[in-house]
Amino acid sequence: MDLWANLDELRRRRSEKWRRYPSDVLPLFVAEMDSTLAEPIRTALTTALDNSDTGYAQPDVLPEAYAGFAGRRWGWHPDPGSMTLMPDVARAARTAIELSSEPGDAVVINPPVYPPFYEWLEMTGRRLVPSPLRSGPDGWRLDLDDLEATFADGARVYLLCNPQNPTGTVHTRAELDAVAQLAEQYGVCVVSDEIHAPLTLGDARFTPFLSLDRPAAHHGFAAVSTSKAWNLAGLKTALLLGGDEVVGKFERIPDDVWSSTGNLGVIASVAALEECEAWLDELRAALEVNRRWLAEALAPLGVGYRPPDATYLAWLDFRDVGLGDEPASVLLERGRVALYRGLDFGPEGAGFARLNLATSPEILAEGVARITAAL
Amino acid sequence: MDLWANLDELRRRRSEKWRRYPSDVLPLFVAEMDSTLAEPIRTALTTALDNSDTGYAQPDVLPEAYAGFAGRRWGWHPDPGSMTLMPDVARAARTAIELSSEPGDAVVINPPVYPPFYEWLEMTGRRLVPSPLRSGPDGWRLDLDDLEATFADGARVYLLCNPQNPTGTVHTRAELDAVAQLAEQYGVCVVSDEIHAPLTLGDARFTPFLSLDRPAAHHGFAAVSTSKAWNLAGLKTALLLGGDEVVGKFERIPDDVWSSTGNLGVIASVAALEECEAWLDELRAALEVNRRWLAEALAPLGVGYRPPDATYLAWLDFRDVGLGDEPASVLLERGRVALYRGLDFGPEGAGFARLNLATSPEILAEGVARITAAL
Repeated sequence: MDLWANLDELRRRRSEKWRRYPSDVLPLFVAEMDSTLAEPIRTALTTALDNSDTGYAQPDVLPEAYAGFAGRRWGWHPDPGSMTLMPDVARAARTAIELSSEPGDAVVINPPVYPPFYEWLEMTGRRLVPSPLRSGPDGWRLDLDDLEATFADGARVYLLCNPQNPTGTVHTRAELDAVAQLAEQYGVCVVSDEIHAPLTLGDARFTPFLSLDRPAAHHGFAAVSTSKAWNLAGLKTALLLGGDEVVGKFERIPDDVWSSTGNLGVIASVAALEECEAWLDELRAALEVNRRWLAEALAPLGVGYRPPDATYLAWLDFRDVGLGDEPASVLLERGRVALYRGLDFGPEGAGFARLNLATSPEILAEGVARITAAL
Repeated sequence: MDLWANLDELRRRRSEKWRRYPSDVLPLFVAEMDSTLAEPIRTALTTALDNSDTGYAQPDVLPEAYAGFAGRRWGWHPDPGSMTLMPDVARAARTAIELSSEPGDAVVINPPVYPPFYEWLEMTGRRLVPSPLRSGPDGWRLDLDDLEATFADGARVYLLCNPQNPTGTVHTRAELDAVAQLAEQYGVCVVSDEIHAPLTLGDARFTPFLSLDRPAAHHGFAAVSTSKAWNLAGLKTALLLGGDEVVGKFERIPDDVWSSTGNLGVIASVAALEECEAWLDELRAALEVNRRWLAEALAPLGVGYRPPDATYLAWLDFRDVGLGDEPASVLLERGRVALYRGLDFGPEGAGFARLNLATSPEILAEGVARITAAL
């Protein structure tokens, strides 16, 4: 089966990406991929249907599969006992925030950043402290001086996004070491959203925060999932990992949390982690083609774009082409192409929009044609 | 395909019911059925896999399917606009409680009752007020005098379980009318967990609380799902329904909630509601056989049992056979049969255990043989 589904196939899907807008809109907004399922995942899910295996998820199998994957991929061997089942990274991150702070406490995030981060802080009653990424010749990077200022000002938690959504930044080991040092100095708990970790591109190298040989790693949390790299968002499965100084707090997590997890998601995730690394590398190669092509295609338009080091997301800068603060609205109206609204990622997103490039070169080209038409 | 899977098939499942205990234990505890998938559900899910349709759930299709089902089943026509997508009834009920009360407020429940009710109140920071069911010649019924006393004492919310888990009580229209009257008199919001509603047995007749022609229905909520009647618990899909006086509060629900819903669950649920009523009736007939057989099988043992009017749950009274306060522990150890622990349903569960009779007559007989052996 081809890696990318064609438009006829995609229009048959009933997921958010393909049902939100009328069919004259090309959807490149939400982070679903237009890939076809990896064969081992399809086989595992077909077997589950053959067994009518649609009851509650079983909490014990996924951690070992993730540990194996982390070992092969990053030479890191987390203890399966340090992981607990979650329905999604959202619930995992909120749980970590709740386990490491109290309502009213300050939580630092780095805008522009995944819009639900804002909602998670609201839902948990935490106080948002922004420490914006700094844009420079190396792309969007952490501003360590500003980060230190927020920590010094009394932050309790740092909700890190690594790789960063929407910029595709892969924080370097040196940056993460510096973060760890600051976290230790100021007693801040690091919660690392690593949902896009398998999706590094080119020679970018991902470092799991908890793999650092530092006290902050022992006191930190990570939220991981197969949902992005293997396109399983609708199957509702993730893991929360805790450093050995905090894993004891998992006892406080209500049973309701793991029972919110999807059984088919667990089954698919185990297949993904144990049997789908070759598929992942094929996907990464295809994303590599797309991220490069997009640079050539956008350059003549005057749309700013720095190819992501990871993820299948492109953070497009429309500030020089006069589409106003929310280019996604104009592009949708004039070009019938749906991008993710930039301002949803924070005020730093004014003039930007996020494009999802996990699709066939043909559909991506059509997307750029619609952007061009709208300009 | 046969309605009930055999033991070899069941042992291949990876769900909680079939993986929690070692293979020498016969699991009759958690509320998963040993049924095979209804053909329209299997077809819908197979099509979804063919389309690699594993992205985020789309929030707009399920309400209409539920409205159609409610119309055909109960002559009730709720407005699809009064429903919002939820990952499960747990989240739906907690959301309703949060929309209708404040932390610290009193919420009334009727023990013995589904154990997560206790956890939901803890998670939402509400104060538990028990109003135990009364056991009598008509089975376990609401104690309306006691209920009124709790309402008069300042309760803000009444979390009703209809049909009741674990007793299988179907509250009558007259009882529900009386509840509504009390709720109106004392300003209590009724949140009705109706997850087992399609599973009425014999001539029991289910009344949706929101279908009552009373002000309390306009101010109430209901939590519904296909997860019990079609065994889709692991697919993570439910709906929250609101009366027309409260549905406006749905705006306050974070986007995170519907995005926690399983896409395959929505797809399977639509198929269940629109195409699987014949299957449901076949299932109900099979449950009818089991609930009657169980009465004959248990009578000689001295184990108390009143066949449920709905659900596939049997609330077994072991108080006369000397197994102590927690018979499930003894049965597991001596009989290698797993029932749900009675005390988890409240202190009223001392000496009781819940048995799941949604299985083949052969497996049910084996379960009773193991109970007999343990006695």
